[in-house]
Amino acid sequence: MLIVMKADATPQQLDSVCAMVRTLGLTPHPIPGPTRVAIGVTGNTQPVDAEPIRGLAGVMEVIRVTQPYKLTSREMKPDDTVIRVGEVEIGGGVPFVIAGPCSVESREQMSKTAAALREQGAAMLRGGAYKPRSSPYSFQGLGEEGLTILREVRAATHLPVVTEAVGTEVFDAVEETADIVQIGSRNMANFPLLKRAGQSRRPVLLKRLMSATLEEFLLAAEYIMSEGNRQVMLCERGIRTFSDHSRYTLDINIVPELKRRSHLPVLVDPSHAAGRRDSVIPLARAALAAGADGIMVEVHPDPDRALSDGAQSLTIPMFAELMAEIEIMRPVLARAAGRKA
Amino acid sequence: MLIVMKADATPQQLDSVCAMVRTLGLTPHPIPGPTRVAIGVTGNTQPVDAEPIRGLAGVMEVIRVTQPYKLTSREMKPDDTVIRVGEVEIGGGVPFVIAGPCSVESREQMSKTAAALREQGAAMLRGGAYKPRSSPYSFQGLGEEGLTILREVRAATHLPVVTEAVGTEVFDAVEETADIVQIGSRNMANFPLLKRAGQSRRPVLLKRLMSATLEEFLLAAEYIMSEGNRQVMLCERGIRTFSDHSRYTLDINIVPELKRRSHLPVLVDPSHAAGRRDSVIPLARAALAAGADGIMVEVHPDPDRALSDGAQSLTIPMFAELMAEIEIMRPVLARAAGRKA
Amino acid sequence: MLIVMKADATPQQLDSVCAMVRTLGLTPHPIPGPTRVAIGVTGNTQPVDAEPIRGLAGVMEVIRVTQPYKLTSREMKPDDTVIRVGEVEIGGGVPFVIAGPCSVESREQMSKTAAALREQGAAMLRGGAYKPRSSPYSFQGLGEEGLTILREVRAATHLPVVTEAVGTEVFDAVEETADIVQIGSRNMANFPLLKRAGQSRRPVLLKRLMSATLEEFLLAAEYIMSEGNRQVMLCERGIRTFSDHSRYTLDINIVPELKRRSHLPVLVDPSHAAGRRDSVIPLARAALAAGADGIMVEVHPDPDRALSDGAQSLTIPMFAELMAEIEIMRPVLARAAGRKA
Amino acid sequence: MLIVMKADATPQQLDSVCAMVRTLGLTPHPIPGPTRVAIGVTGNTQPVDAEPIRGLAGVMEVIRVTQPYKLTSREMKPDDTVIRVGEVEIGGGVPFVIAGPCSVESREQMSKTAAALREQGAAMLRGGAYKPRSSPYSFQGLGEEGLTILREVRAATHLPVVTEAVGTEVFDAVEETADIVQIGSRNMANFPLLKRAGQSRRPVLLKRLMSATLEEFLLAAEYIMSEGNRQVMLCERGIRTFSDHSRYTLDINIVPELKRRSHLPVLVDPSHAAGRRDSVIPLARAALAAGADGIMVEVHPDPDRALSDGAQSLTIPMFAELMAEIEIMRPVLARAAGRKA
Repeated sequence: MLIVMKADATPQQLDSVCAMVRTLGLTPHPIPGPTRVAIGVTGNTQPVDAEPIRGLAGVMEVIRVTQPYKLTSREMKPDDTVIRVGEVEIGGGVPFVIAGPCSVESREQMSKTAAALREQGAAMLRGGAYKPRSSPYSFQGLGEEGLTILREVRAATHLPVVTEAVGTEVFDAVEETADIVQIGSRNMANFPLLKRAGQSRRPVLLKRLMSATLEEFLLAAEYIMSEGNRQVMLCERGIRTFSDHSRYTLDINIVPELKRRSHLPVLVDPSHAAGRRDSVIPLARAALAAGADGIMVEVHPDPDRALSDGAQSLTIPMFAELMAEIEIMRPVLARAAGRKA
Repeated sequence: MLIVMKADATPQQLDSVCAMVRTLGLTPHPIPGPTRVAIGVTGNTQPVDAEPIRGLAGVMEVIRVTQPYKLTSREMKPDDTVIRVGEVEIGGGVPFVIAGPCSVESREQMSKTAAALREQGAAMLRGGAYKPRSSPYSFQGLGEEGLTILREVRAATHLPVVTEAVGTEVFDAVEETADIVQIGSRNMANFPLLKRAGQSRRPVLLKRLMSATLEEFLLAAEYIMSEGNRQVMLCERGIRTFSDHSRYTLDINIVPELKRRSHLPVLVDPSHAAGRRDSVIPLARAALAAGADGIMVEVHPDPDRALSDGAQSLTIPMFAELMAEIEIMRPVLARAAGRKA
Repeated sequence: MLIVMKADATPQQLDSVCAMVRTLGLTPHPIPGPTRVAIGVTGNTQPVDAEPIRGLAGVMEVIRVTQPYKLTSREMKPDDTVIRVGEVEIGGGVPFVIAGPCSVESREQMSKTAAALREQGAAMLRGGAYKPRSSPYSFQGLGEEGLTILREVRAATHLPVVTEAVGTEVFDAVEETADIVQIGSRNMANFPLLKRAGQSRRPVLLKRLMSATLEEFLLAAEYIMSEGNRQVMLCERGIRTFSDHSRYTLDINIVPELKRRSHLPVLVDPSHAAGRRDSVIPLARAALAAGADGIMVEVHPDPDRALSDGAQSLTIPMFAELMAEIEIMRPVLARAAGRKA
Repeated sequence: MLIVMKADATPQQLDSVCAMVRTLGLTPHPIPGPTRVAIGVTGNTQPVDAEPIRGLAGVMEVIRVTQPYKLTSREMKPDDTVIRVGEVEIGGGVPFVIAGPCSVESREQMSKTAAALREQGAAMLRGGAYKPRSSPYSFQGLGEEGLTILREVRAATHLPVVTEAVGTEVFDAVEETADIVQIGSRNMANFPLLKRAGQSRRPVLLKRLMSATLEEFLLAAEYIMSEGNRQVMLCERGIRTFSDHSRYTLDINIVPELKRRSHLPVLVDPSHAAGRRDSVIPLARAALAAGADGIMVEVHPDPDRALSDGAQSLTIPMFAELMAEIEIMRPVLARAAGRKA
């Protein structure tokens, strides 16, 4: 931590600040400068709350040096975390593809989709039984019936299943069904839900809140990990900006930055970021090219009749095309991943 | 709704789109133009999901005309909603001031603060028993003990109490204690929590998510109202932008815009937006000058020792100064409010 | 400056960084910590370019402590700058009001407007002869003819005149006419133009670029001041954010923050931020309540026929109402300004 | 254009609006609905300024349907524009790579860099002789001497040269030297400069302002094209958002969106977006994977001693690695480009 004093701070104010630093169990190191004094602070192995210092007389700014996240940090664990679900590996070097419709709509829809996806090489099936929707008048998902359908389709196709837990109320039921439990973007800062996920035996796919900084995103993962669950994967899905040509702005640069700062696998959801079908494949390619461990895309056998997110869902033939392109990209992805190591 | 066709859309595509419009129970009105055709759509008294149309061949854009929120809308209810809590009126023309510390820390702290605030003319006491914190390692609130303290302080001072419900798990307990239940910013899109709040007999203070558009904010209020609770007040607390000189950017212009579009009372929290004490009073004055029905400010008897948000808490003398300034502003606020009516 | 080393930086890397610091004429102060070393750097009376250090092996982060702006800074000049134009004072404690149409359209329009504004107590007349427009197909202003009209109207009404210089090509002509030269938002980072303005004998009204941080805004003013012109006023006019209910998001909190960091007068343009007439008066009140030294508002005698910005222009009666409200607010503004001093 | 009337608009107000539409030479088509009337407007082959209508009594909203840009639009010119500079083609299907240092610093630096870049397969050399810098105290470029160096290095290496014109004052000199003239991000809305570029015989590389919408970006290109210069290429370089882990947020999704709406070549500058060397290669790969026609990257033979932007400059070996990876990606890029056609 570095404390920067105001240019006109008095020696007494400097002394008070140093005293407060010592009260917090830390050591102050005043660094005099031509216009102002700064105070280097050492001794914090634990994150320190800078609040008490920020308000003291004579203090201009408090600059944090160490990061507040620990378990998620690559400094604490230099090796990549690899998550295994059945025969699938996430974060192990092979591009990982989750695909499926936004919502579970019917047994028929899911069976048809799952069979096609399996054939095209998807590693996992997605589909929401519980849907968080901005409007109370929109379709909210099939609920438990949706979970039943997911279990049946998995039994038939052997595709593992990702589905979202929208609150602690439904976590038990979702955990019972899902191979990976998804925490949706709007729940990234729902702390009771994160804690519950931290007590789960299932891997968790955590989506970034559209207004979260990288640090807040990792702290949300830290909530899960600090409760004991170390199987967390991070998923970028677009942020809120002024740029109005797409639904969200895909923050592609967070991919290499997360890989650098954390050991957790990083996925990208190009569908929600794009908001329209014809941008999904370019964004999916870009995500993998930027170093993502995998992607999660919305695919629907008949998108024009989808109950939600139809406009951004790929058709089955488009998904097949995407998988073919990923196949061609493999050498460059492997080379890029190898050079990092 | 207006559907804009691509310049090269075929007559067959136009026919298919019109057919789909009719399938949705609506009437299409093609409007030919020099480079493209647009289709006006009438007949929607209910919000219509435009998804099925957006994906059809030949469609360039679908533009929604009617707003998706209803119960919150001023078109549905032209008169201002006034919420009464004991002798206090919110939205009735008199500036409404909620004040208190970020967190309930101890009986002593709350008693001391409440007595001082009451003397200075605050209408209501705030204080968090449950605290949503970005880091799992930060102080998370006293929980039930905090609620007990709030009840005791209310009994002693007769100041009504606002406190936050961070999840459905604690809603019953919070509702038991609070005169107004707060839904925090990070929970604005926690739909199970909004539904629970909609079934409460308590008025709800709903804070805007830092990335919510005005429409999403009103739809969150719509979730509460559509469950039967009509006592909702809206609270702006700053949004996430690139502007890094303050903690958040206070979106001051949403105040007159919300008053125009909705009948619900509008509050502003200048403390979280500013993030530093010396900007709170200017922002509080600005909020009322922009037409807000009230403000919610953080005040702490000894901010340098606060367990959370100390840097942005006013001292008691600063709060007294603010109240004096509000008193002087009353004639201009009354004049402005009167002219609107 | 503070240099934060990586946790795994070697002693050799530390030495190299310290050597580079000394090469730059500065003194390094290593501060060992439990997980990493930081290096406090002293001796920089001039802003130092941190680039060479940022790229060295073992460096995690370089944190700048002193601000890069100087002449604009309140630390260098604690007293408020007051700018005088004829009998008008800007920054001297009395709310300063610039009003007028977006564009100079005709002699008649300007005479009519100026007479009405003068009667209502405006201190200065605005009106663009050269108009920067997003589209090449929009009205671009009357050019020199517009300047002639401004001179005639000033001669008739004795109202001083603010008008924009859109480039160095027209600066001489604009300077000849204007009592204050405006640098528009889109030109805030047009450095040749800023330098030219710095050589002018006229006061300069500098508008914030919609994407500028506070620091970039002050550095733009620094460009003008470092060329010798000390008469600069800063004008907030709204920033680009995701919030789509208004044309721009008025960053109201920059007002107290600029007053704290700089001695220059601070104005607010509520018209461009709002984009619609009925929000202009609430924002104007809010700007003054937040501590702005003045406002610049668009007023048009017949806004529905304005050639630009009609939708956000006040009518003359609305402007009269605004002036009446400002009059009522004076005591609270004076009290707030006095307390700061 | 679609005009949406307020729910309580009177028949007289409707008539006035229709009359105004006819005054503008257009045809109104009222579309009655259950709660409000909308008016479809046809007949506009030219962009129409909606301002006069927006302010009329009874009008809630005016929605523009046709885009205001024309010459840049793919609807006007369905085929891709291909720009030729010597033997190089931009937009013709082969990834185009511009590389070089941020600033021209010396003859030696440029010769050394150009030789290495040529060897690695760069198509063009970049280097700024005039540098727009946020601070007046930063290195501002070598000016004319820089241009002389660029000419000499081109003569020696036969690499064509891209360099920036920071204002109309230096345009003639830059045009004399440059094979492509760059308009920098901060000048995207410098309309006199855009007009001058429109009169040039040189191709123009136009960078997006960090706060420009897609529409504003295309309108800036429209300024150039409407003066007669049809050789414009668009360059995304990151936008300003709250996301603080990188210097700017690369808006990767604008790449497919620009390709869809415009026929102009689209480039990406990953260096400015990233702000740090180790993210440049992942972003460069992502840009091409998203469909960009080329990239512009900063490369410096000794980045730690660069006078500007050293931290984000690739070393020569890193650039060689990037070129090798682009080579491997070619089949997937060709396939993706082919499918679009």
